Amino acid sequence: MQTLTIDLKERSYPILIGAGLLADPSAFASLAGRRVAIVTNETVAPLYLARLQGTLTQVGAGVTALVLPDGEAYKNWETLNRIYDHLLAERCDRGTTIVALGGGVIGDLSGFAAATYQRGVPFIQVPTTLLAQVDSSVGGKTGINHPRGKNMIGAFWQPRLVVADTDTLNTLPDRELSAGMAEVIKYGLIRDLPFLDWLDDHMERLMARDGELLAFAIERSCANKAQVVAGDELETAKEGGRALLNLGHTFGHAIEAGAGYGVWLHGEAVAAGTVMALELSRRLGWLGEADVERVSKLFERAHLPVRGPRLGAERYLDLMAHDKKVLEGRLRLVLLKRLGEAMTYAEAPMSEIRAAIETCCE
Amino acid sequence: MQTLTIDLKERSYPILIGAGLLADPSAFASLAGRRVAIVTNETVAPLYLARLQGTLTQVGAGVTALVLPDGEAYKNWETLNRIYDHLLAERCDRGTTIVALGGGVIGDLSGFAAATYQRGVPFIQVPTTLLAQVDSSVGGKTGINHPRGKNMIGAFWQPRLVVADTDTLNTLPDRELSAGMAEVIKYGLIRDLPFLDWLDDHMERLMARDGELLAFAIERSCANKAQVVAGDELETAKEGGRALLNLGHTFGHAIEAGAGYGVWLHGEAVAAGTVMALELSRRLGWLGEADVERVSKLFERAHLPVRGPRLGAERYLDLMAHDKKVLEGRLRLVLLKRLGEAMTYAEAPMSEIRAAIETCCE
Repeated sequence: MQTLTIDLKERSYPILIGAGLLADPSAFASLAGRRVAIVTNETVAPLYLARLQGTLTQVGAGVTALVLPDGEAYKNWETLNRIYDHLLAERCDRGTTIVALGGGVIGDLSGFAAATYQRGVPFIQVPTTLLAQVDSSVGGKTGINHPRGKNMIGAFWQPRLVVADTDTLNTLPDRELSAGMAEVIKYGLIRDLPFLDWLDDHMERLMARDGELLAFAIERSCANKAQVVAGDELETAKEGGRALLNLGHTFGHAIEAGAGYGVWLHGEAVAAGTVMALELSRRLGWLGEADVERVSKLFERAHLPVRGPRLGAERYLDLMAHDKKVLEGRLRLVLLKRLGEAMTYAEAPMSEIRAAIETCCE
Repeated sequence: MQTLTIDLKERSYPILIGAGLLADPSAFASLAGRRVAIVTNETVAPLYLARLQGTLTQVGAGVTALVLPDGEAYKNWETLNRIYDHLLAERCDRGTTIVALGGGVIGDLSGFAAATYQRGVPFIQVPTTLLAQVDSSVGGKTGINHPRGKNMIGAFWQPRLVVADTDTLNTLPDRELSAGMAEVIKYGLIRDLPFLDWLDDHMERLMARDGELLAFAIERSCANKAQVVAGDELETAKEGGRALLNLGHTFGHAIEAGAGYGVWLHGEAVAAGTVMALELSRRLGWLGEADVERVSKLFERAHLPVRGPRLGAERYLDLMAHDKKVLEGRLRLVLLKRLGEAMTYAEAPMSEIRAAIETCCE
């Protein structure tokens, strides 16, 4: 078991990474004598709920569980309300810890419930997808979607503990493994060129789910994200800071929204969106054609799409204007100054943004 | 204009108190060049919306406004969603400041919208009721009701600025002036005996809306609340701390819920609930009969009820068990050790709690 501490002063917390942690009482020792409400979904529950319940009961926690439907389409108010109803029906109070067992949707929903139930209760993440392990484990972002936009409603709420059991990746569908890998690659692109090189060397073995290599990739990803987040917990930095984590996300959100939520996985949209951001960086003279080619290739080796749907550049721009990365009316994008170094940039000419989009649509 | 600074380190903010502030550009100078979304209700809008819009426009803010229905019955998800819809339709982004113009319901709803829209936007309170001026101005509590309980969903979200224009109290219905006075009296009871004595000396003139006396009472109330909140921002203190502000609230919430939300005003329920708490304190030997009598009399001089509805003690206890003041299953109450000194207490015998409730029902 590896431990990575996310340093956020009084809100600091550990991320435990390793095989078999769901069945390891020592990972959950802090819950001895506490009331716990596990929130999971109907895909994950048959695989891992009994195991986690058993471990929590073993450490002396009082456990209740809620099983929600699976999918991004349920990341909405109605499902959130099912969590509130459950907590109230079970008479959960401010001392109850909410444990999210599942992927990003479960983590975002449960985390937002934890942030807002009785104005905030303790929260623990047990991510079971690669994406959730390398992304939502660090940063404290929680929330739900709104018909007009993704993650429009939410809060920052830090977990007390994250337990990433790499065994859970063995049951992860191929497509979701790929989607998680898009975010892993992102960390290399924005701030860790040696990690990008390492990924280039090991992508096939990672996609074959080599446990040891995956554990390294998860830890390195979380460590990279943690360093960014520690300097900008609430995403208030004007330049750079946490915004850099959104490489490919503004384009990606447009892809997800334009195609209709649930058609593209988040990580898939991020991969294609990242290629758009890299193409724009190339047009601005910061990357070479070989750089864009190399990254596209790496995404493809991770079985990820590198082209967005052909919605037309204007539709993309309209959807992008709804994204949170718009500040006081300006379209602020994350671009690469070079491989391994990202920056925020609000001066890209609209003509170049349009051209980058059109070039990178299928 | 008086200024009181609420000291919460990087979340510190000023409360401006005085006559005519709604029309005073200097009170809102910080909004120059900002986008602002005013949220108000259909009672307050005809009285004060144009005035505030004019002042904000004068300082150079870009203003949009949303008028909601009036009343505690609308402090729910549906109304909150109307705020989200408005903000999204107006393409408000993270740089937009939400301004709550109204009483506690508008403040709680708008504050929760500010806490959760795009994971948090700046928030300004312009309270137009005495209750909101002395209570929700300080503390950062925001939220909505749930069919199973009041304020069950919410967040802590500090305003950047509070502007309390005492002129707005001239249009406040008598019943709401009284409800606000219940909270004013509370500050005297829990920690400021000289203020309680002052209230005893001036209650009739306060109820006659003497502006200067009201301004003093508001400032003294906010200062008292601020001192409590500064030591316990997130209500995490095990003993005392912010919980002391809830004198009368656990009984009061039971009255509000038991009678059906909207029948009793919050302050009315707090007055009757406070008498229950004082009666229990008397039964535990901390107060004399004359103390309880004196405070009941003071509430009555403020035209407040001092008896709860006769729901039966068991129904009260059941409703109280749903209140957030229950921690790990124990009923923790705020009681008075003596007039001017409150404490949290979890050891009151159930028989005495029942007796105090029965004694104080009409």
